[in-house]
Amino acid sequence: MPDIDLDLDAVSLTEQLVNIESVSQNEQAIADAVEAALRPLEHLTVTRHGNTVVARTDLGRGERVVIAGHLDTVPLNDNLPARREGGLLHGLGTCDMKGGDAVILRLAKHLPEPNRDVTFILYEAEEIDSEFNGLTKLSASDPDLMAGDFAILMEPSNAVIEAGCQGTLRVEVRTTGERAHSARSWMGDNAIHKATGILSRLEGYEARTPLIDGLEYHEGLNAVFVRGGVAGNVIPDECVVEVNYRFAPDRSVEEAEAFVRDFFEGYDVTVTDRAPGALPGLDRPAAKAFLEAVGGEANPKFGWTDVARFTGLGVPAVNFGPGDPLLAHKQEEYVPVEQIERCEQLLRSWLGA
Amino acid sequence: MPDIDLDLDAVSLTEQLVNIESVSQNEQAIADAVEAALRPLEHLTVTRHGNTVVARTDLGRGERVVIAGHLDTVPLNDNLPARREGGLLHGLGTCDMKGGDAVILRLAKHLPEPNRDVTFILYEAEEIDSEFNGLTKLSASDPDLMAGDFAILMEPSNAVIEAGCQGTLRVEVRTTGERAHSARSWMGDNAIHKATGILSRLEGYEARTPLIDGLEYHEGLNAVFVRGGVAGNVIPDECVVEVNYRFAPDRSVEEAEAFVRDFFEGYDVTVTDRAPGALPGLDRPAAKAFLEAVGGEANPKFGWTDVARFTGLGVPAVNFGPGDPLLAHKQEEYVPVEQIERCEQLLRSWLGA
Repeated sequence: MPDIDLDLDAVSLTEQLVNIESVSQNEQAIADAVEAALRPLEHLTVTRHGNTVVARTDLGRGERVVIAGHLDTVPLNDNLPARREGGLLHGLGTCDMKGGDAVILRLAKHLPEPNRDVTFILYEAEEIDSEFNGLTKLSASDPDLMAGDFAILMEPSNAVIEAGCQGTLRVEVRTTGERAHSARSWMGDNAIHKATGILSRLEGYEARTPLIDGLEYHEGLNAVFVRGGVAGNVIPDECVVEVNYRFAPDRSVEEAEAFVRDFFEGYDVTVTDRAPGALPGLDRPAAKAFLEAVGGEANPKFGWTDVARFTGLGVPAVNFGPGDPLLAHKQEEYVPVEQIERCEQLLRSWLGA
Repeated sequence: MPDIDLDLDAVSLTEQLVNIESVSQNEQAIADAVEAALRPLEHLTVTRHGNTVVARTDLGRGERVVIAGHLDTVPLNDNLPARREGGLLHGLGTCDMKGGDAVILRLAKHLPEPNRDVTFILYEAEEIDSEFNGLTKLSASDPDLMAGDFAILMEPSNAVIEAGCQGTLRVEVRTTGERAHSARSWMGDNAIHKATGILSRLEGYEARTPLIDGLEYHEGLNAVFVRGGVAGNVIPDECVVEVNYRFAPDRSVEEAEAFVRDFFEGYDVTVTDRAPGALPGLDRPAAKAFLEAVGGEANPKFGWTDVARFTGLGVPAVNFGPGDPLLAHKQEEYVPVEQIERCEQLLRSWLGA
């Protein structure tokens, strides 16, 4: 079993974690290493759930905070092992999100008496379908372990709070026609031509940018796929445009669906996927205290993250972790070591070190 | 080897031919049967070229006519063996085009002294890529065997002359953009949205219907495929619309291409396939005489056929055969027996029986 050493500084620990390859559904080695490092710590209650590890303090504090990070990465892309160059640590998972995981593990070991009770969660399979996600499974099997007054997901956010997240809705917008040989095209009815109106409405779309708790969100309505056609000499009888709507968290998923159905009025619309957004919740006391502790700055989160999962359980949550989210999933991903150090320091002092 | 009997009436002979399965590239058995039936006839010079059989009279007549039919069919679709019901013969290849083949074989045997020299060609692989087509191969290896003053392709045409044929051009019309995560779509440039103009031009297209030698052709410009998209959460950076232009034979393939490039001005256009049309040529003496002999009626041919291949060799050509072309390639294809009989009778009397 590969070893990790929680007495190393957070940057060296990040490097150790990066060098344990853990592409989604291959997290056993890293989860074993994490469990082995946490299990001996007497101030923590450690449990294992698949390749998800949970460690809790139980000091009877008036407030409990959940601090979570996923252990998996997107597929290898010729970007291992980790490589440190000046102030940057390069390699698969450096940014998304083993820098955050290292901070979590350092806090778990070196803060035996935090001023708030803490639940540390290091979980599997965030980068693939939701059904495999360690938090999906944990919220079904042991929802108590996810309970808290506030949650911090250490997803890359440039070491600045990103609050809330936008929702996502995926629909198929469909036209139908009638097949005919293309040499006698007037005998048929071309479904691809009929999709003109779908694309022209999308082209004319103007994004809403609502201000929520002082944060400006930015919606988007986009074709992500288009397909149609039977054969090179056949008038096509079906055309499907797959549309992804990213909506600000002041809209429910039902309101988002109603908007899209109205937008494509006159066309056949089928919803294929939907996930609600999460309000930033920066007006809640626990969130407000954290915001002040880290300097008062916050940005809106545009992408969907597991923050929405906590919000759905009634736990206000934010993203706060080292690394630029625009580098996530890129071959050249890296993390500035200074951001790892800053996140650890801010969290340590917020937790009363 | 399955037997065929050229002394049977043309309808029964059609049935025999249909029951020798001959999906494209599986024509050996039917070509063997055809060759064996023609080889003993002393008034014919018979040659074999792959699974194409050529039989010629050589009577020193002032004129030579080529009468041709393909031996292959589209794939089986639970539609063999042949089944006769009332005045219709059902089954794979009845319409396209073993009824025509039966007429050719009957003429070859029973008209030892036609008033024009005749070249009968029964050829392979018309239903698949042009490189496999028996006429493509014959025009490369033995172009003399395709020479003549006039050619008749016995493709289904409801026993009425279909003259000339329209050309076909296939192009890819492409838009490009820039990828981005769909949660931050304004960082990218959606190539599918940019295809709006391609589809709206197609939707507004008005077909040309030129009158040529008294026949009204009917063009068509149609999207036959559309594709675009990278992943469900990525702004797509490419969209391709495949367009098929069917053009009347008063336009050359170069003029057709110029029209399409002009039509999609401002977009990236790539030609992927092109085949010229064929003028009806009904003003040519041999064609005019045939037209009069079969009653003076002719229709324009909309689809591309091997007629264009003869026209390209300087041989005016028409389609004239039993069966409804709209039934070709359909599971339920059939041929009215009366049309087989009529075609045989008209050709016999034109050839001086």
